[in-house]
Amino acid sequence: MTDTMNRSHTTQPDLDPADGARALELDRQYVFHSWSAQGALAPFVIAGAAGCDVWTYDGERYLDFSSQLVNTNIGHSHPKVVAAIQHQAAELATVAPAHANLVRGEAARRIVEKAGPGFAKVFFTNGGADAIENAIRMARLTTRKHKVLSTFRSYHGNTGAAIAATGDWRRMPNEYAWGHLRVFGPFLYRSEFHATTEQEECQRALQHLERTIQAEGPDTIAAIVLESVPGTAGIFSPPAGYLAGVRAICDRYGIVWIADEVMAGFGRTGEWFAWQGEAVNPEGVVPDLIAFAKGVNSGYVPVGGVVISPDIAAAFDERVFPGGLTYSGHPLAMASIVASIDAMTDEGIVENAKMIGEKHLGPGLRALAEKHEMIGEVRGLGVFWALDLVTDRATREPVPAAVIGKLKAELMKRHVLPFAADNRIHVVPPCIVTPEEVERALVAYDEAFAAVAAG
Amino acid sequence: MTDTMNRSHTTQPDLDPADGARALELDRQYVFHSWSAQGALAPFVIAGAAGCDVWTYDGERYLDFSSQLVNTNIGHSHPKVVAAIQHQAAELATVAPAHANLVRGEAARRIVEKAGPGFAKVFFTNGGADAIENAIRMARLTTRKHKVLSTFRSYHGNTGAAIAATGDWRRMPNEYAWGHLRVFGPFLYRSEFHATTEQEECQRALQHLERTIQAEGPDTIAAIVLESVPGTAGIFSPPAGYLAGVRAICDRYGIVWIADEVMAGFGRTGEWFAWQGEAVNPEGVVPDLIAFAKGVNSGYVPVGGVVISPDIAAAFDERVFPGGLTYSGHPLAMASIVASIDAMTDEGIVENAKMIGEKHLGPGLRALAEKHEMIGEVRGLGVFWALDLVTDRATREPVPAAVIGKLKAELMKRHVLPFAADNRIHVVPPCIVTPEEVERALVAYDEAFAAVAAG
Repeated sequence: MTDTMNRSHTTQPDLDPADGARALELDRQYVFHSWSAQGALAPFVIAGAAGCDVWTYDGERYLDFSSQLVNTNIGHSHPKVVAAIQHQAAELATVAPAHANLVRGEAARRIVEKAGPGFAKVFFTNGGADAIENAIRMARLTTRKHKVLSTFRSYHGNTGAAIAATGDWRRMPNEYAWGHLRVFGPFLYRSEFHATTEQEECQRALQHLERTIQAEGPDTIAAIVLESVPGTAGIFSPPAGYLAGVRAICDRYGIVWIADEVMAGFGRTGEWFAWQGEAVNPEGVVPDLIAFAKGVNSGYVPVGGVVISPDIAAAFDERVFPGGLTYSGHPLAMASIVASIDAMTDEGIVENAKMIGEKHLGPGLRALAEKHEMIGEVRGLGVFWALDLVTDRATREPVPAAVIGKLKAELMKRHVLPFAADNRIHVVPPCIVTPEEVERALVAYDEAFAAVAAG
Repeated sequence: MTDTMNRSHTTQPDLDPADGARALELDRQYVFHSWSAQGALAPFVIAGAAGCDVWTYDGERYLDFSSQLVNTNIGHSHPKVVAAIQHQAAELATVAPAHANLVRGEAARRIVEKAGPGFAKVFFTNGGADAIENAIRMARLTTRKHKVLSTFRSYHGNTGAAIAATGDWRRMPNEYAWGHLRVFGPFLYRSEFHATTEQEECQRALQHLERTIQAEGPDTIAAIVLESVPGTAGIFSPPAGYLAGVRAICDRYGIVWIADEVMAGFGRTGEWFAWQGEAVNPEGVVPDLIAFAKGVNSGYVPVGGVVISPDIAAAFDERVFPGGLTYSGHPLAMASIVASIDAMTDEGIVENAKMIGEKHLGPGLRALAEKHEMIGEVRGLGVFWALDLVTDRATREPVPAAVIGKLKAELMKRHVLPFAADNRIHVVPPCIVTPEEVERALVAYDEAFAAVAAG
């Protein structure tokens, strides 16, 4: 199906290396960067991009196996999405959320249809963090309870409740929201439950979750927030039975299940939503709320949102929902969602991601692990893969940061834009990636691992 | 200067009333709205917009004296901003924030230059709420203190810390962030300090602020967050001397002054930033951080950010700033900022807003107050005005909600899109509004007040 995929301007426009120097100079002088010490930054300057390629002002092309921040699921510069943005910009860029406009309804309808019969309406936000914020708000108000439960191995966004729900280090300097608690989720390769099989890991993780709820008090817990497949924390699918167990626990105690599909959704796992996949959720249980962003429009226009179950939507028919934002349901963002979902559907892009995972990336990365001692585990599905790198396969001791730094440099030398997190390389190309591009990237990963091992 | 302003397609494109019906049907079925009970909504359907006009699928045109949510400062469909979005969409819509791109640096440079010599860098967010979140984060981390002080008559956004800093009713169901406290700010017409002159109101408000800080403990207070001119709370400029007093208190106790310019900034008050205005800030004191959104690009692409003083920026040269987001410095948003600031500069749009306030809106609204007993006070500057409506000018008792509902209906009948908040009509057209458009709107306001008084 990949031959049907559009690629815009495969030749680069005229580029002036002086613009690259100017971009770097202005960046260093005026731009304050995310999650960084500002002093020693040397950012990579991107001039343009199309499909799975990005390029610099020097005309150097790179295979984007990061999808930027795992968001350009449809690839860069998809011509139908670009055209939709251009058309909508001229017609009506912005309206107040209280008004209605056609493209917002069209976007909401498509998202509800992809989510399936368990869902009724969409509340649009500006990104993933405020999607999580508003999902938590809905859960607290409908349950009339206050605590929010999430996992230590997670990332949910950078604002008040979203960062407090986050498990990783980024929460710690930012803990100013109350009512959050975190548990360990299932992750067999680095089990917190002394488990040796997926089934054992699943049972023990569910027991730990339920015992925590009982000990905290079920009447205090409004929501469980879970990445359906945790992303930045390491890309590990829940074991079979885990999500069904979570659904049962939520039903037993009157807790709202919020599926964080910001990174995992819209094609990344080879499904429209990760929780819909046979491997992730064989029992086919359904969450109450879905937080989305990134892949819904590949981030061409900032947007996110919450897909809402009929019950929770109806709870606000008579009662005011106390949340909102100026750009909720922004027409420009909505037009990019409509075009992106339609193109992904028509061009079989979600199916391509699944096929690539099964036939190319999965086997290819496993073959790499055969060759390179450093690769402790290969995990993933679709175009959502992690290489968990270790100094010793027996102890599973993570490689130090310097090794990741060297790997990134070797990959950049080979014109592959990498994504690294902790001791891992995440292999996360756009969902449109072709077998040939996977092949080229695998050669680069292979050479980079060899170079680092030799050095 | 208004004759130099561009207006795109002053004739409407082909419109099909069936699309309006379809928009409403999809909206009611699939879209969950901000700040509302969902059951009884009957949203106004907007098909397109240009300049100060919006229109429906039935071809009815309305003068937009709401600027939607007080954000379309440059008017709708400004051709230069539309063209910049169209160009950037094709070139490079999105990159990860860790990378650099030319248009991001160009946008940051322009914003820093408009803010003036007290500012060094810009951190970009998706909107106003996360701008406030990140400004508070910077203040807490640099002062190593935790409490955030704001005012009861304020709105700062819908996420964790932003909604906790908010004073109005929207905070109350959402209070899950700790470390926030609120005081009364100066507002003579509805004074909390039993004051009878602006000077007395100013002195007493500053005394109340400083006594609260002393009693809470100056060593616990990281930041004071203030709308330079409070917006949704009622559009009341601080009395002369208040901001200078706040600056002195912040300096005395090591507190960061965060100016919330989300609504007041980028032309709304007839200045690039409201705090720069002679009437608002005669002493010319300078805040430490500025939160912005809305007017920076008139909301054509969702974006916001924080303008950072050199000291606070430098505090993160060696230390990691623990905040970030996928769409920070999003190229499509950045292109719209560059085009919008350049057009506003070249076309004298900020100066136009000032002139309109001084020569047309101010005198026109004061003349209305002469005629209509219901108008208790006319407040504002630039294109940022409130009519404070009362049942009795002596007691200043606010009119009930039903009166506001009737006024809105009468204004819609006269094809003026109104903005209402509590007992007030806010008169907030785009900064490009012409004297002729103001004249037409004033006739509509006049008739609407007469109709409501008669009915």
